[in-house]
Amino acid sequence: MITGTSYLGTEKTTFGHKKDRGSYEQELIHEIIDSSLLAHLSFQTGGEPFVIPMTFVRVGSKLYFHGSPKSRIAEVLRSGGPVCAAFTLLDGLVLARSAMHHSMNYRSVLVFGATQEVTDELEKRMSLQALVEHVIPGRSEDIRETTDAEIAATFVASLTIEEASAKVRAGGPKDAPSDRELKSWAGVVPLQLQAGCPIQDNPGKHGTPLPSYIEKYKLSPARRET
Amino acid sequence: MITGTSYLGTEKTTFGHKKDRGSYEQELIHEIIDSSLLAHLSFQTGGEPFVIPMTFVRVGSKLYFHGSPKSRIAEVLRSGGPVCAAFTLLDGLVLARSAMHHSMNYRSVLVFGATQEVTDELEKRMSLQALVEHVIPGRSEDIRETTDAEIAATFVASLTIEEASAKVRAGGPKDAPSDRELKSWAGVVPLQLQAGCPIQDNPGKHGTPLPSYIEKYKLSPARRET
Repeated sequence: MITGTSYLGTEKTTFGHKKDRGSYEQELIHEIIDSSLLAHLSFQTGGEPFVIPMTFVRVGSKLYFHGSPKSRIAEVLRSGGPVCAAFTLLDGLVLARSAMHHSMNYRSVLVFGATQEVTDELEKRMSLQALVEHVIPGRSEDIRETTDAEIAATFVASLTIEEASAKVRAGGPKDAPSDRELKSWAGVVPLQLQAGCPIQDNPGKHGTPLPSYIEKYKLSPARRET
Repeated sequence: MITGTSYLGTEKTTFGHKKDRGSYEQELIHEIIDSSLLAHLSFQTGGEPFVIPMTFVRVGSKLYFHGSPKSRIAEVLRSGGPVCAAFTLLDGLVLARSAMHHSMNYRSVLVFGATQEVTDELEKRMSLQALVEHVIPGRSEDIRETTDAEIAATFVASLTIEEASAKVRAGGPKDAPSDRELKSWAGVVPLQLQAGCPIQDNPGKHGTPLPSYIEKYKLSPARRET
């Protein structure tokens, strides 16, 4: 169901298989991206495919990635060649009555485009603060300000979301009618990324109490409830 | 520390940045792969990068991927072009006293190579059963046998692990010495994929009790404890 703005379908984002799971809806695409902690960024280097997990943040219609200016990834992202970024949330294991109908519940997004280096100092600073807030909301007010030298020593690339699609599988197994009467247990084992007990660094020396924004940090299927 | 067999470092698997996090150790590489539920498979299509999350299983030195013979991915994997598969386990958020030293704890593997279609019926059957067992050990004995027609209707590709490397970050934040006295809370928020309460499909009709292999299915940082 399309309720709002959609991204345009293109040759690359056309769903070949299981079309009913696909969507170009902007709201859904942004929600899946924002619920992810990592992107898998795929690109070409020396004419061959390469994929790397990266932290990122979305601000409006832009994705920001950062790294050391000396890293291989900075070199690639600076070149502005085509990239494909995948965002994948694994929501559950789907257990059917036959091996063939076993599946997984997931929400995923692919974004296609070309990255470009962010050179504007204010935009770099904003994106780095947004990145910290994306990973753990409330954190940026609890740490010292980033210095100009640190901003200068950081490589930031942006990728504008224009060509993007989402794919979602939810619900129980879809067994063949002839298998429905079999006695195998069938259903869904939900999966979610969850936060464990925080481990303080060097607590004897400082003993800073656990801030409430960390205490309430919870990862749910929608990643966090704040 | 290298304790056993290692994969050979090549141009593609040489660590450019943060070399101390890298390893070619076979045992570590296999452990990370086996602890993953999804691979992000990167390849080229129409000369541009593409990445797709896929279920998989490792059997010895081979990775197996499967899909519908009509899917776009089957077409690509059949072609035998170069691929790069990423396996990523997110273990925690690392909170430092400055934005720049924030990080994540993770275990990741990259495998480079070329896929080939599996046509041998026995190998296809073995790989599909291994896939079910990889995702949820004990499951394959609880479901009906896969028919020859189902095997024939499934596309399976293999990728031999020859060129591979692992990268691991563990432990607390690495702040600059001058930041160590700051009062910000610093440390690690551990993350793990966890299984929730299983939801039975159509329970009124059958009411099959929850099998023990599902009951004990737990996902820990090492994915599962059985």
